[in-house]
Amino acid sequence: MRIGIVGATGYGGAELLRLLNNHPEVKNIHLYTSSKDGVHIDETYPHLKTVYDNTLQPFNSKDAGSQSDLVFMATPPGVSAEHTQEVREAGAKVIDLSGDLRLKDPDVYSAWYKRPSAQAETIHQAVYGLSEWNEEAIRSASIISNPGCYPTAVLLGLAPLIQQDVVDTRSVIIDAKTGTSGAGRSATMVTHFSEMNENFKIYQVNTHKHTPEIEQQLSIWNSNMGAITFQPHLVPMVRGIMATMYLQLNKQLTVEQIADLYNEAYDNKPFVRARNNHSFPATKEVYGSNYCDIGLSYDERTGRLTVVSVIDNMVKGAAGQAIQNMNIMNGWDEKTGLNFTPVYP
Amino acid sequence: MRIGIVGATGYGGAELLRLLNNHPEVKNIHLYTSSKDGVHIDETYPHLKTVYDNTLQPFNSKDAGSQSDLVFMATPPGVSAEHTQEVREAGAKVIDLSGDLRLKDPDVYSAWYKRPSAQAETIHQAVYGLSEWNEEAIRSASIISNPGCYPTAVLLGLAPLIQQDVVDTRSVIIDAKTGTSGAGRSATMVTHFSEMNENFKIYQVNTHKHTPEIEQQLSIWNSNMGAITFQPHLVPMVRGIMATMYLQLNKQLTVEQIADLYNEAYDNKPFVRARNNHSFPATKEVYGSNYCDIGLSYDERTGRLTVVSVIDNMVKGAAGQAIQNMNIMNGWDEKTGLNFTPVYP
Amino acid sequence: MRIGIVGATGYGGAELLRLLNNHPEVKNIHLYTSSKDGVHIDETYPHLKTVYDNTLQPFNSKDAGSQSDLVFMATPPGVSAEHTQEVREAGAKVIDLSGDLRLKDPDVYSAWYKRPSAQAETIHQAVYGLSEWNEEAIRSASIISNPGCYPTAVLLGLAPLIQQDVVDTRSVIIDAKTGTSGAGRSATMVTHFSEMNENFKIYQVNTHKHTPEIEQQLSIWNSNMGAITFQPHLVPMVRGIMATMYLQLNKQLTVEQIADLYNEAYDNKPFVRARNNHSFPATKEVYGSNYCDIGLSYDERTGRLTVVSVIDNMVKGAAGQAIQNMNIMNGWDEKTGLNFTPVYP
Amino acid sequence: MRIGIVGATGYGGAELLRLLNNHPEVKNIHLYTSSKDGVHIDETYPHLKTVYDNTLQPFNSKDAGSQSDLVFMATPPGVSAEHTQEVREAGAKVIDLSGDLRLKDPDVYSAWYKRPSAQAETIHQAVYGLSEWNEEAIRSASIISNPGCYPTAVLLGLAPLIQQDVVDTRSVIIDAKTGTSGAGRSATMVTHFSEMNENFKIYQVNTHKHTPEIEQQLSIWNSNMGAITFQPHLVPMVRGIMATMYLQLNKQLTVEQIADLYNEAYDNKPFVRARNNHSFPATKEVYGSNYCDIGLSYDERTGRLTVVSVIDNMVKGAAGQAIQNMNIMNGWDEKTGLNFTPVYP
Repeated sequence: MRIGIVGATGYGGAELLRLLNNHPEVKNIHLYTSSKDGVHIDETYPHLKTVYDNTLQPFNSKDAGSQSDLVFMATPPGVSAEHTQEVREAGAKVIDLSGDLRLKDPDVYSAWYKRPSAQAETIHQAVYGLSEWNEEAIRSASIISNPGCYPTAVLLGLAPLIQQDVVDTRSVIIDAKTGTSGAGRSATMVTHFSEMNENFKIYQVNTHKHTPEIEQQLSIWNSNMGAITFQPHLVPMVRGIMATMYLQLNKQLTVEQIADLYNEAYDNKPFVRARNNHSFPATKEVYGSNYCDIGLSYDERTGRLTVVSVIDNMVKGAAGQAIQNMNIMNGWDEKTGLNFTPVYP
Repeated sequence: MRIGIVGATGYGGAELLRLLNNHPEVKNIHLYTSSKDGVHIDETYPHLKTVYDNTLQPFNSKDAGSQSDLVFMATPPGVSAEHTQEVREAGAKVIDLSGDLRLKDPDVYSAWYKRPSAQAETIHQAVYGLSEWNEEAIRSASIISNPGCYPTAVLLGLAPLIQQDVVDTRSVIIDAKTGTSGAGRSATMVTHFSEMNENFKIYQVNTHKHTPEIEQQLSIWNSNMGAITFQPHLVPMVRGIMATMYLQLNKQLTVEQIADLYNEAYDNKPFVRARNNHSFPATKEVYGSNYCDIGLSYDERTGRLTVVSVIDNMVKGAAGQAIQNMNIMNGWDEKTGLNFTPVYP
Repeated sequence: MRIGIVGATGYGGAELLRLLNNHPEVKNIHLYTSSKDGVHIDETYPHLKTVYDNTLQPFNSKDAGSQSDLVFMATPPGVSAEHTQEVREAGAKVIDLSGDLRLKDPDVYSAWYKRPSAQAETIHQAVYGLSEWNEEAIRSASIISNPGCYPTAVLLGLAPLIQQDVVDTRSVIIDAKTGTSGAGRSATMVTHFSEMNENFKIYQVNTHKHTPEIEQQLSIWNSNMGAITFQPHLVPMVRGIMATMYLQLNKQLTVEQIADLYNEAYDNKPFVRARNNHSFPATKEVYGSNYCDIGLSYDERTGRLTVVSVIDNMVKGAAGQAIQNMNIMNGWDEKTGLNFTPVYP
Repeated sequence: MRIGIVGATGYGGAELLRLLNNHPEVKNIHLYTSSKDGVHIDETYPHLKTVYDNTLQPFNSKDAGSQSDLVFMATPPGVSAEHTQEVREAGAKVIDLSGDLRLKDPDVYSAWYKRPSAQAETIHQAVYGLSEWNEEAIRSASIISNPGCYPTAVLLGLAPLIQQDVVDTRSVIIDAKTGTSGAGRSATMVTHFSEMNENFKIYQVNTHKHTPEIEQQLSIWNSNMGAITFQPHLVPMVRGIMATMYLQLNKQLTVEQIADLYNEAYDNKPFVRARNNHSFPATKEVYGSNYCDIGLSYDERTGRLTVVSVIDNMVKGAAGQAIQNMNIMNGWDEKTGLNFTPVYP
């Protein structure tokens, strides 16, 4: 299998390289970037010295599409909107880790992303790569739109409830917390160490781009879904997302019935680990791995259910799920090359 | 003014010492502890070398009450329940930083704290020391029950809305995040550095003791209050609390009207800084200071209001508010000795 | 291959479990502990849920030695001194991750460790498992004493110079920095998050137990070695060691000649990556991996050489090197199961 | 007293504002910056809301020098070299926090700073503001060159030994560690949170600009001084410097004699706290304060002395010492307005 990575010097690209190094079916990797033509990858990432011997190539769609069987787009906004179709036509399948192809409605896209949407045809072809819930469509897809980090944590946490229609569809509140790596490798004031350490911040209040992505998938599962509240926060750590979700149930359920919904949904899904025993996951318990861990608590005083979902944003929230999708597309076991135990402590 | 600090070797005691060192009216400080009789304070806290020359004394109520005009109880659960009245009888006023005297209903106390409540008389005498909202009662009190760290952040954030009855009283959800110093100085697995760094945790889901404390005060302000949802989380930082609060309004209000409620409430309160300009505070912006900073965002899509309130849990959430209460009790300007600019970065 | 891990609930045990999960030759793992008989491993370590299905067993030498072909001792001081020989006699080879068997001279041991040394016979049989430099002896060993974390970083950094006798043997100064995981899982005041975050500490000044371990191996390489200065520091991070080493050369060498010494020593050692280009490693560049990265700078103003060596203390400094030794003992490629790319960022 | 701060939006400026807010002699502060004309300071620094009501002014020497009695230059390289003399001529004294005026020899300056030196006259007038050791010259100075953060920690730690000529002058090795705030407010890859957290780095090996500054002052104290080795490291924390210094003594001294040298030097210096009891300071023990804490250990095995010196780089290493110098220049008690107890924990 020949692989191309566009945007190899970003964190998404680096994480793909970390994970693919252990993948038994991947033989040949091409690295593309916009700016560092001819530079050895270990000059950008010294931790890859002796691991990869690759030199960065300038990206053009035709080369990338013909040199590889599958191309991962780990690129800034706009790149895959412009080039995915060309790469596809040059012969490679595409897994897009950017947000360009996630929203089906161009108006919703431009309202939240403040830029024009990709072409309708590309968006139409792109299959939303939420591995656990879209396996069939992923298997036959030639373009995958890999889910955002927050939506992955949130949707895996909410799916069993929303699909079974047990939630008041106007009650969904998501308080999400992330490490800084999701903001990418570019140095900014917000993620400057002196500004971020010993600090906890809320950001993009009521305006985060992942809001419509979550709503879109919830609406597919349940046509009565209302608007959600989604507030993201920055934690002084590098990796990890926790979504704490607050829901009003629309029917009486026992704790066992709620747990059963999760067991039925995930018992044969190797990367989702739901807990039944009033134990809650911490982000470190999935660090460096492709797991999504979920905890639940129903409060009789308020009739409210709290769902806690954690992932490593770089793995299940990006590169890991992308590889999981690659596995599914190729008919391999979805765990292939993803057998990473969380790094703890 | 002669001051006594019981529990001087805990973090609450240490923070009182830091702040009182700059207080112009405090001349004489006695330090009491349960275990380290005769030890110099700088053996426990080398950062206090040359700042304080005090030796720790074993605590007994009679001495503490007679050697001081005011005694701060910065003690583990149960100590002030047992000894506050004795200290009071020996001649000193008491400001209790523990949770022993906060809940007026003994049944609620024992249900949440899993231990018997203090004597009814002591609880009855204890004035809840939420400085900005209880000034009159504080002025004439001889026993102050200093608010918990979370309740301080939450109540200052909610007061203008709950008092003016603009909130659906069953809709209040509080997602709270704290640094580790609130857990005290005792080393535990939960706050072990290797377990806590690069990690984000939820804890005491639906069972945190500060829940009834918040509900009690909200009910005083608004007799229709329902049960709240309160979920605390641990952030890998030492100081700081952020409470992100989600509310459904029960009437149509413009953004300006909401802002006005906060301005009216806090314009003459020096330690509460409400923001109107869609800017949100981060915890570091109050680090080491007695400020509570508040931000607001109303979302038309959901009709939901998000209120963000931050404090330094050791200052406004503990020692700082205690000193503010001392100032009020003595008729001094409430800012006396609390003129600390946040330590930034 | 049947494996036993004694002390499975400590960090060393947990890291062995993380790494062994990807080892192709390991089929069967027994977990022993002193206290948690019958408890499932995922109750202690929720991150291992679905990864391991093991239950903890009480440790006794006979069972451990007969149920396994190889036993890792990841135990507190004294345990392997007492039980290694028994485990050996019951049939298993032993790799000891504790410090019990590292020092050949019982007097030196008891002077630095403040406890009696293990039996002479056991110490005599134990081969010092510095994989890159002791391969031949490791291959035929039945007891391995796995090096300490600091000594691994230091010795790999100094070996080419000391072996070639180019250093003034009285000039060696080592300023070492470690994350907190090396201190183990027991919660202590020193590694309490509130005490350790936003803090940098020096500890065990001139008294750290790894000092004689380093001196012992340097003396084997160069009989003129004098006493070294070794000062360890605690960094507010979980994983990683950097040793900054200061040396006076005893002869004129060009920068190229110095680099050549490292290239000759390590060019065929897959886990040691020496840099020649005045680039210096950071600890994160080996995070989660078995690499040791080394940088060098010779200063003409002072005639002093600075050598910088970094490892992940949990991997190359403990569990990783232990598995590397297991591989060598069994005639497998030393990289087997250790193909972990550093987790970056 | 009218104060001007040039470079008010950098961290040095922000720290001056934090500290000056409590200074009883300062009435009037003007804030100058290169770029943000007319912007309110709390837009740049929300933590200063209600603390300062100042608007930023564009900097020009004439205004700054005439509107203020004393101007702090907290500016990037080159600014004070160009403008100090003009500000002086316009009527104000100057305390320069940059490195522009620290090195007396222009050739040394340009060799290390890679830029031309300031005018000889300005450099000649500038008094090196190491408060504890240059008090007399500071008192009558009109231009102060405030010491660098590292040199402050190092020189206070070495002064008693070098002045008394008890050290082998070619043996001085300084292994220094700093938090990130010393690198300033500009976001860079090196101090990007995702690159810096859970990471420990060495930087500017053998090339740091503070090396000649340290050597210059040591040579003033002891004309036999040789070149020193100085290696700086970055710690994943915001504030704090620790310098671990390794010295060979040139004569036999008892531990008591060494301690006496420090006591004699610092017993009447309120901001230097030397410890005699084999206890070593951690950086947090001076956090937010103007203290320099020092610990000592003599090792008989090697005949080597280890000196540990810690400061808060933003306070004693920058703004705090600048204010201490202002106090001395004005004949006020040097502690005026600097009565900050370390923020612990």
